[in-house]
Amino acid sequence: MKIKDKNLEELKDIAKEIRELLIDVVSKNGGHLASNLGVVELTIALHYIFNSPEDIMLWDVGHQAYVHKILTGREERFPTIRKKGGLTPFTNPNESIHDGFISGHAGNTLSAALGIHEAKKNNKVIAIIGDAALANGESLEAINNISEKDKNLIIVLNDNEHSIGENVGALSKYMSKIMGKKSYNDFKNEVELLVRKVIFGNSVADFIKRLEHTVKYFFNPGNFFEELGIHYIGPVDGHNLKELISTFEDVKDMEGPVIVHIKTEKGKGYKFAEQNREKFHGISPFDIKTGETCKKNESYSQLFGNKLVELGEKNSEIIAITAGMIKGTGLDKFFEKYPKRSYDVGIAEMHAVTFAGGLAIKGKKPVVAIYSTFLQRAYDQLIHDIALQNLPVLFILDRAGIVGEDGPTHNGIFDIAYLQSIPNIRIMAPFSKEDLEKSLEFAVNDKSGPIAIRIPRDSSFCLNVGFEYGKWQEIKKGNEYLVIAVGSMLKELLIIEKELNKNNVYPTIVGVNFINPLDEKYILENFVKYEKIFILEEGILHGGFSSKILEFLNDKNINKIIHRIGIEGFVEHGKRDEILTDLGLKGKKLVDRLLKK
Amino acid sequence: MKIKDKNLEELKDIAKEIRELLIDVVSKNGGHLASNLGVVELTIALHYIFNSPEDIMLWDVGHQAYVHKILTGREERFPTIRKKGGLTPFTNPNESIHDGFISGHAGNTLSAALGIHEAKKNNKVIAIIGDAALANGESLEAINNISEKDKNLIIVLNDNEHSIGENVGALSKYMSKIMGKKSYNDFKNEVELLVRKVIFGNSVADFIKRLEHTVKYFFNPGNFFEELGIHYIGPVDGHNLKELISTFEDVKDMEGPVIVHIKTEKGKGYKFAEQNREKFHGISPFDIKTGETCKKNESYSQLFGNKLVELGEKNSEIIAITAGMIKGTGLDKFFEKYPKRSYDVGIAEMHAVTFAGGLAIKGKKPVVAIYSTFLQRAYDQLIHDIALQNLPVLFILDRAGIVGEDGPTHNGIFDIAYLQSIPNIRIMAPFSKEDLEKSLEFAVNDKSGPIAIRIPRDSSFCLNVGFEYGKWQEIKKGNEYLVIAVGSMLKELLIIEKELNKNNVYPTIVGVNFINPLDEKYILENFVKYEKIFILEEGILHGGFSSKILEFLNDKNINKIIHRIGIEGFVEHGKRDEILTDLGLKGKKLVDRLLKK
Repeated sequence: MKIKDKNLEELKDIAKEIRELLIDVVSKNGGHLASNLGVVELTIALHYIFNSPEDIMLWDVGHQAYVHKILTGREERFPTIRKKGGLTPFTNPNESIHDGFISGHAGNTLSAALGIHEAKKNNKVIAIIGDAALANGESLEAINNISEKDKNLIIVLNDNEHSIGENVGALSKYMSKIMGKKSYNDFKNEVELLVRKVIFGNSVADFIKRLEHTVKYFFNPGNFFEELGIHYIGPVDGHNLKELISTFEDVKDMEGPVIVHIKTEKGKGYKFAEQNREKFHGISPFDIKTGETCKKNESYSQLFGNKLVELGEKNSEIIAITAGMIKGTGLDKFFEKYPKRSYDVGIAEMHAVTFAGGLAIKGKKPVVAIYSTFLQRAYDQLIHDIALQNLPVLFILDRAGIVGEDGPTHNGIFDIAYLQSIPNIRIMAPFSKEDLEKSLEFAVNDKSGPIAIRIPRDSSFCLNVGFEYGKWQEIKKGNEYLVIAVGSMLKELLIIEKELNKNNVYPTIVGVNFINPLDEKYILENFVKYEKIFILEEGILHGGFSSKILEFLNDKNINKIIHRIGIEGFVEHGKRDEILTDLGLKGKKLVDRLLKK
Repeated sequence: MKIKDKNLEELKDIAKEIRELLIDVVSKNGGHLASNLGVVELTIALHYIFNSPEDIMLWDVGHQAYVHKILTGREERFPTIRKKGGLTPFTNPNESIHDGFISGHAGNTLSAALGIHEAKKNNKVIAIIGDAALANGESLEAINNISEKDKNLIIVLNDNEHSIGENVGALSKYMSKIMGKKSYNDFKNEVELLVRKVIFGNSVADFIKRLEHTVKYFFNPGNFFEELGIHYIGPVDGHNLKELISTFEDVKDMEGPVIVHIKTEKGKGYKFAEQNREKFHGISPFDIKTGETCKKNESYSQLFGNKLVELGEKNSEIIAITAGMIKGTGLDKFFEKYPKRSYDVGIAEMHAVTFAGGLAIKGKKPVVAIYSTFLQRAYDQLIHDIALQNLPVLFILDRAGIVGEDGPTHNGIFDIAYLQSIPNIRIMAPFSKEDLEKSLEFAVNDKSGPIAIRIPRDSSFCLNVGFEYGKWQEIKKGNEYLVIAVGSMLKELLIIEKELNKNNVYPTIVGVNFINPLDEKYILENFVKYEKIFILEEGILHGGFSSKILEFLNDKNINKIIHRIGIEGFVEHGKRDEILTDLGLKGKKLVDRLLKK
């Protein structure tokens, strides 16, 4: 869409058009609606004043960049967003010259902006960051590294008082306080009034008392940033195009670093999204008229959440922790029922993990539920604070494996590999509803050290078989084939079992919940019996589960070839089922792989 | 040492005694001297007022806890610190009930303190944190999660304006500004004076102008913290025992959260350490009279630093980045020669990595030198910002493998495993001085994607053999044994080669620089020829180099048992050579292992 030659009224019409397009496409494809509805005017004003790609725009996180995509030559392809082969869900330099850097995980943009600014000192670099992402540790490290030499750096703080759920933390409270404050000009008027009163009567002591109050509450709203050497401008109404344009007009020629504080409303312009921002943060396809998403089976996240509520009743030491994902991880019911035992620390995964360590070392049972891909942020804390001290923290790795539409930044494919090489961490991957419930019962009562439980982004699957610590479950006894399916893969295997049978293959099927420790007894007693052994896992192959098995066999002097089926590299976006199929982890392709070798 | 019943003069004598003990022991054992000399009075005052372990003291980082160890029943064992089997170099709950949490990596303490505070709401929790550690992303996440309910939380900010090298960042500048400010009481006096002047003549406009200035420069020094809801007290002279004791006396009964800002001098009381804080931060044994450390061969870190200076001359796109470790990584000469192409971002590894990504995406060649153990902090950034975008950033992983006296929090044993499962990252492990130089020449000119180079904490070893991308070097051709030595292990192998010969074993010796990609050609052509194959690596075995070889062999349908020699879990402190020997990676034990199988 071209906007440079438009007048204000025409721009307002474009905003309306874009909103309609957003609602229409997201209702069909799913995606991030609320945040994009919130930045329609902001994005228009930015592109009206600045010239992308010479002025380099960076979005933190990229899920608020739909409008930016629409305004930078991707309007026609916009209906393909999040679909296989279509527009990517976040910013992506390979997709467009207008996307300066990748941005899937919140908090990386200010650091990238500083690097880009150093490399391209003469270009304006504009980092648009949400208030929740600003409170992430990496953002704060970057803020601390901004200095007066960053003259072309403009930070646009998109303050909607919400990350995915409610926002948390001192910074957020501080920002709300700014919002409630008067402007610097108002402050000056107030002081003048006060001083006049003093001159015409009141005592100096009384004056000082009042002054202190006035100063504390009215002076310099952006103090926090100014103290750190960043010029502050704001707050600005993020839905008032005129005000936005005139602000950026000023900012354009200003010497930075400067932070422009914009107040926006998530979901603006679509009533269901305004009313329920968390639901419409990242949403499945929905009915535009009612705002209802299509019904599906209970997800594993919900199952986990429900079970934890039940377990929390019996065991008062259980404490739930998440990093900005109360609903996504299924913890909402626990938070509601046990508010005093619930902590949402915001997008602060490192803090979440060490905080849990602090609780655990004093006898509590913390349950930290974070998406697998985001727990990568706390890798060092897992090693240093949890594993080394062998603290009994339970980690729930939600969305482990393929997430689907959110693409490569959000797939949780590295967790088995990165957890497996850390001593002391046991790893579980329940393969059914019942198995998850039993796993949780076991894990919340375990006091011997850390445990990580992988949960796939999938609807539940029922299979009630045995559960025993460290033991794999032989689901079917077959003949010369042995197929070992880790967690989520068991369902996929059972779905295609009949196809195998049709080809006269009747494999022994083993469901693996316990990734670490391995069921060494099972391996030693059974592997030699089979001509062909397959291992299926929804994770990266290098350093993954099958790799550990190879190590075990080798170290026991057993020569045995294993057919390893898993993920081989970064995986692009598309529906989870499509992607699993493409990867050969589902359906006909999986059948072919199991028959071919 | 008992101090509760002492008077001020006696406490001062104790401070003197402790300083002598610190200098004496560290001159023999090596260790962290400057930081501990800086906190002698602070630690005495804390233990004088508070009652450990009921009042829980947490030190960030634990290397400033020597005095704390001396005052909590470990005085007699203090001369064993950092020695094998002796006192551990950092705080360690397994060593003493007075150590609340582990603390080897800066920045974890506030998060742990919040967790412990939640679990033990009635105990005072005192977190002592340096100004540089406060600027770490995890600390800032924790600060953001502190709220008014943390009534028993006391943060002691040990501000010495130095992390390991010079301190960096906006927060640090802000803190220095506080230091130069007058107190709140002084401010009130100034305003009163101004107002009097107004009443007796000057204009209101003039008054406002002056007031603005006054307010900006004198009001409320701890504003930054107060804005975030943390009560601020300070600055306090950290070497004035009387002032410290009276401050903590006040703070003890105060309702928190409160931050007490203490000004200390690193190296206080030992002139060589006062003059050269970075040298005496973590130091090898030295001569007390001259402050000189014993001479040794050039380290790999120095070699790297020297070579980068040379390469920087030819290639002006090279940019050096480190996270608070200019000297430790050998970058000091580069920083001196090319200040405009040098960035020390402070203890902010996440920011360092993404910042490098920003530079690389715009055509620069960033070289990020961080200790292997600390790069764990940026694991997500490696995946998300670097590997996924395949950006040509060069990572120098200093102190990869066993570091020695600093123990389990500082060993760099996970890097091969965690890097290997990430797509696109090539991993090199040069095995000699010449090999390192050639590796650097290759890597700084490579534009195809990220590379990580492992550097051991060792003195240089000379061996000039061939260098070719992705090719392993056959150093000796032998008979039925094949021994593959990764990077640092080649030297250890060559040292004991004669012992093997004495036992009639003449192995083929291969030096591996390229961990990823593997030299597949070499494997395919040679592995089948040997009866016994050993792989030596200075890294964790699960998911390590030998594990990748097993995967490759398996996936190529090759049945071959590999004898894997590496590290199996967390490794305690001691001299590097002692530890390598204990692990069977050096000397006679290595000979035995190579002969036994």
